[in-house]
Amino acid sequence: MMRTIFLLSLLFALSNASVQDFCVANLKRADTPAGYPCIRPIHVKATDFVFSGLGTPGNTTNIISAAVTPAFVAQFPGLNGLGLSTARLDLAPKGVIPMHTHPGASEVLYVLDGSITAGFVSSANAVYVQTLKPGQVMIFPQGLLHFQINAGKSSAAAIVTFNSASPGLQILDFALFANNLPTELVVGTTFLDATTVKKLKGVLGGTG
Amino acid sequence: MMRTIFLLSLLFALSNASVQDFCVANLKRADTPAGYPCIRPIHVKATDFVFSGLGTPGNTTNIISAAVTPAFVAQFPGLNGLGLSTARLDLAPKGVIPMHTHPGASEVLYVLDGSITAGFVSSANAVYVQTLKPGQVMIFPQGLLHFQINAGKSSAAAIVTFNSASPGLQILDFALFANNLPTELVVGTTFLDATTVKKLKGVLGGTG
Amino acid sequence: MMRTIFLLSLLFALSNASVQDFCVANLKRADTPAGYPCIRPIHVKATDFVFSGLGTPGNTTNIISAAVTPAFVAQFPGLNGLGLSTARLDLAPKGVIPMHTHPGASEVLYVLDGSITAGFVSSANAVYVQTLKPGQVMIFPQGLLHFQINAGKSSAAAIVTFNSASPGLQILDFALFANNLPTELVVGTTFLDATTVKKLKGVLGGTG
Amino acid sequence: MMRTIFLLSLLFALSNASVQDFCVANLKRADTPAGYPCIRPIHVKATDFVFSGLGTPGNTTNIISAAVTPAFVAQFPGLNGLGLSTARLDLAPKGVIPMHTHPGASEVLYVLDGSITAGFVSSANAVYVQTLKPGQVMIFPQGLLHFQINAGKSSAAAIVTFNSASPGLQILDFALFANNLPTELVVGTTFLDATTVKKLKGVLGGTG
Amino acid sequence: MMRTIFLLSLLFALSNASVQDFCVANLKRADTPAGYPCIRPIHVKATDFVFSGLGTPGNTTNIISAAVTPAFVAQFPGLNGLGLSTARLDLAPKGVIPMHTHPGASEVLYVLDGSITAGFVSSANAVYVQTLKPGQVMIFPQGLLHFQINAGKSSAAAIVTFNSASPGLQILDFALFANNLPTELVVGTTFLDATTVKKLKGVLGGTG
Amino acid sequence: MMRTIFLLSLLFALSNASVQDFCVANLKRADTPAGYPCIRPIHVKATDFVFSGLGTPGNTTNIISAAVTPAFVAQFPGLNGLGLSTARLDLAPKGVIPMHTHPGASEVLYVLDGSITAGFVSSANAVYVQTLKPGQVMIFPQGLLHFQINAGKSSAAAIVTFNSASPGLQILDFALFANNLPTELVVGTTFLDATTVKKLKGVLGGTG
Repeated sequence: MMRTIFLLSLLFALSNASVQDFCVANLKRADTPAGYPCIRPIHVKATDFVFSGLGTPGNTTNIISAAVTPAFVAQFPGLNGLGLSTARLDLAPKGVIPMHTHPGASEVLYVLDGSITAGFVSSANAVYVQTLKPGQVMIFPQGLLHFQINAGKSSAAAIVTFNSASPGLQILDFALFANNLPTELVVGTTFLDATTVKKLKGVLGGTG
Repeated sequence: MMRTIFLLSLLFALSNASVQDFCVANLKRADTPAGYPCIRPIHVKATDFVFSGLGTPGNTTNIISAAVTPAFVAQFPGLNGLGLSTARLDLAPKGVIPMHTHPGASEVLYVLDGSITAGFVSSANAVYVQTLKPGQVMIFPQGLLHFQINAGKSSAAAIVTFNSASPGLQILDFALFANNLPTELVVGTTFLDATTVKKLKGVLGGTG
Repeated sequence: MMRTIFLLSLLFALSNASVQDFCVANLKRADTPAGYPCIRPIHVKATDFVFSGLGTPGNTTNIISAAVTPAFVAQFPGLNGLGLSTARLDLAPKGVIPMHTHPGASEVLYVLDGSITAGFVSSANAVYVQTLKPGQVMIFPQGLLHFQINAGKSSAAAIVTFNSASPGLQILDFALFANNLPTELVVGTTFLDATTVKKLKGVLGGTG
Repeated sequence: MMRTIFLLSLLFALSNASVQDFCVANLKRADTPAGYPCIRPIHVKATDFVFSGLGTPGNTTNIISAAVTPAFVAQFPGLNGLGLSTARLDLAPKGVIPMHTHPGASEVLYVLDGSITAGFVSSANAVYVQTLKPGQVMIFPQGLLHFQINAGKSSAAAIVTFNSASPGLQILDFALFANNLPTELVVGTTFLDATTVKKLKGVLGGTG
Repeated sequence: MMRTIFLLSLLFALSNASVQDFCVANLKRADTPAGYPCIRPIHVKATDFVFSGLGTPGNTTNIISAAVTPAFVAQFPGLNGLGLSTARLDLAPKGVIPMHTHPGASEVLYVLDGSITAGFVSSANAVYVQTLKPGQVMIFPQGLLHFQINAGKSSAAAIVTFNSASPGLQILDFALFANNLPTELVVGTTFLDATTVKKLKGVLGGTG
Repeated sequence: MMRTIFLLSLLFALSNASVQDFCVANLKRADTPAGYPCIRPIHVKATDFVFSGLGTPGNTTNIISAAVTPAFVAQFPGLNGLGLSTARLDLAPKGVIPMHTHPGASEVLYVLDGSITAGFVSSANAVYVQTLKPGQVMIFPQGLLHFQINAGKSSAAAIVTFNSASPGLQILDFALFANNLPTELVVGTTFLDATTVKKLKGVLGGTG
């Protein structure tokens, strides 16, 4: 009995230590440069740390025959502030995750199924390309252009993980052709001709 | 007179520079991954940067004959965002700060009184133990299991400092035996037998 | 021709910009707090960014019926400085990755096969446990005690990723019982009795 | 048509990826240790990333014949969270940016016009002084005392950039003489005599 | 005399405090993830903190009628470890700094001369473009595609500063067309046709 | 026996995980921006994590009747890379730690003995001063001018801890008067007169 009293006072004292083990995002509050404000620890449940959306292939019936299913902080608030996020890539036959960058994170890719040709280009314009089999891992340094392409005849899939809860995702063609960036500026800042730019704007829904 | 006018305009211009020297925590607001929102600088007083709770021994009349008195951000809002926190350890004769970790910080310990045997275990399972006298300092790398134990016949005390305002504190026995983690899982994930686990759950208030 | 000359001078100028996209580890050199010194970019090959050791199950014929196959910087020098590492977990039926921490990283786990009961304990001694199916993801905050246990009758496997190239791995039982930490200190800093400690030291190869 | 549908669904999926490319400050909300909360991306305009106040000289009709025009987060909310800020220095003939520090950032200076003698003092009390011409760049390490002084007969100007959105600016004389720090404490903590301190307090508006 | 002795012993003691105010790069040694090893402080001179190469326009007689003159750690070893670097942009009439990214830094641009249309594209494919006059500042968030283009009839120039000593510079067209990335992969990962790709490879010296 | 074999293979596998728990400095090697290269873990002993130089008062027989005894990385190589360092302050009656800054760290001070008046000045020139008794703690934000002064009639002492292994220490008077910074520049960048400057240069050993 006394022991219990001693113990409870000890537990009480130590639980006052007020630590932040995690910070499950309150997505209704304004973001900050370090992530979202936390929901109160008392409201956090085990399921807040689990994400179930990556177990099945994304819909690859689209122009790239591929899908990116993100588990970033907006989908998976439990990883707010923890410096990690993840995503699933699905590539139907001939599928491609087009040339893209993640402005705020490096990426590690693990091949689940199929065969994937992946690569990145360095600032020195050197090309690092490999064709990967299930179980192989490839790392893509932060901010560099990279791509994944189905190298086989069946579907392929991979899990990718980023060292940021908000890694960003800038797809080259969407950045150039799926907005209102004037054709003249696209032409002027790439070496593409106006006909090509306008054609791709047409395909990707861009204007200007 | 003109000089004063010149000067005041200068001061005014420079005080617009809007810097964040400190960020005294507003504990009533939701935490963020980088700490609490700041109270307005105009409301900050010198006493916000002072903490007076570490000058006297904590209550060691408990199961471990020891006390940890934290000055983390919850107790000492002035250190919010400054990357430091501190605490006092008191060890009555035979007192022990049981095996524990700080998930988010390294720790430096300064012995105030008495004799303390302190140690940590590395990831490679190497043991680093020393018996320390007043004035000696020991450093404990981030996240590793460590402990402090009274090595003398009189009371001992130490001041510890962490390189985080929220270092965390996970006491091994509390993590294993003072909650509802099922006995079966404790048994399965340690090499302890169910009798030992149940006994310690009894002592420490755990269930399951 | 002139165009080419113009271009080459441009390329030459820009390639002088000297950036560090990556820093493949030279493991023969002394480590630094930020990682290993880099091998020269000219010696870097695409295969330096690929790791092939996670595609097949580790050997689970051991006391825990489980295996951890790491792809940390020592195994996979290409991720040096990139803030990420990965590993494969294999759990035979009844297999367990025992209670452990990673002192320097948070972890995200993706279940490849089978059913895994995983959990962690917070600094407030709250327990977060879930049983996961293939494709489910769970995140474990930095430095907290956690475990994975096979929840099914067949083998299970998972890929885990850390936001550090050197996340560390401290297995509780090895830290306590697989070294020369004196029994007296183990007893004193846990709530275990000497008989239990000595028995486990015997099983795990510890002395003292 | 189908292609467009495929595409739109792709865009929709990817735009869900929820990234934080930038975080334009909402200055009406409380600051956090990592910066201000963000305004919603939908309200962000191109002009939020532009600052127009550095194109013309600041008012140098003051006691130092100089002006610092800051573009820190308070003036330029678009750089919140981006780890950069900038300012313009103007130095009339004989103008001086007095000895000062930036507690939270290193600084790079680019001379626009005139001739500037700039220098800093290291922790080892070594002096690094240079007289700079237009187009020359000098770097000042974080937190060290430094100064800029007009070295020519005409006006001089420079652009400085900091690796923090809130670098801070502590001007030595203002810190010592433009507040209510008691003369006795100033005398006691510098090697200045009371007469000098009181005289400067008089000039700079200090009391005590 | 005694005072001097007291003083010298004090100075001696304090200069033992061993601080790292700066870390001028020893470029002959292998880089690390945090930058180059330092030369010894005793060999550091004031001129190590000054860079003189940005005062005059770069050579714009090239395919883009523009020049980037970097002062990154390779050109300016004094900024090693200080988290800043700088560069000069020159744009002859019709000159363009083509679409590019800096994988490791945000950028702030100050217009020195002329008129510059600058812009970036966000991860959400939103376009932020402005035409800037001398003295205006624009900030470009880390890792996003951006460009600068001469908007006037005379030459234009700007100073840019990055919050990294090694910001990286990946020019889109060079990454796609100035190396041996196979035409098939470029076609597959962009939406460009093979004829366009081959033509640009021809212009930019690419193969494959 | 088989169990032991199973176990040893497990230990072997896991010890391959290659973690960096700590990085005891090899002070003979060149420093890097992140700290010194590590000595090999096999050469690390428990005593490397202990520092014994702070237990006794420093020599206060000097011009300031005070002493700073540092345990920075140069004195205490075991804290290399761990983001912490410590020091002891001793103040004889009338002793003063003069106005100074730490360019790279915040500081927490714990009073051991006596009474200390401590304070700092913010960028907004606000003064935060308190007189502290044994056991009281005060925090000083990074990079700001601060001081400690004996407020009693007996000796006083304090332990200070910094969130950097190399916090730096710039003592104002030494920076201004104990080197070869020309009197003209000191006069020009402070508001001090030449007579005062020359007098203090005389006392503190400065020239120029």
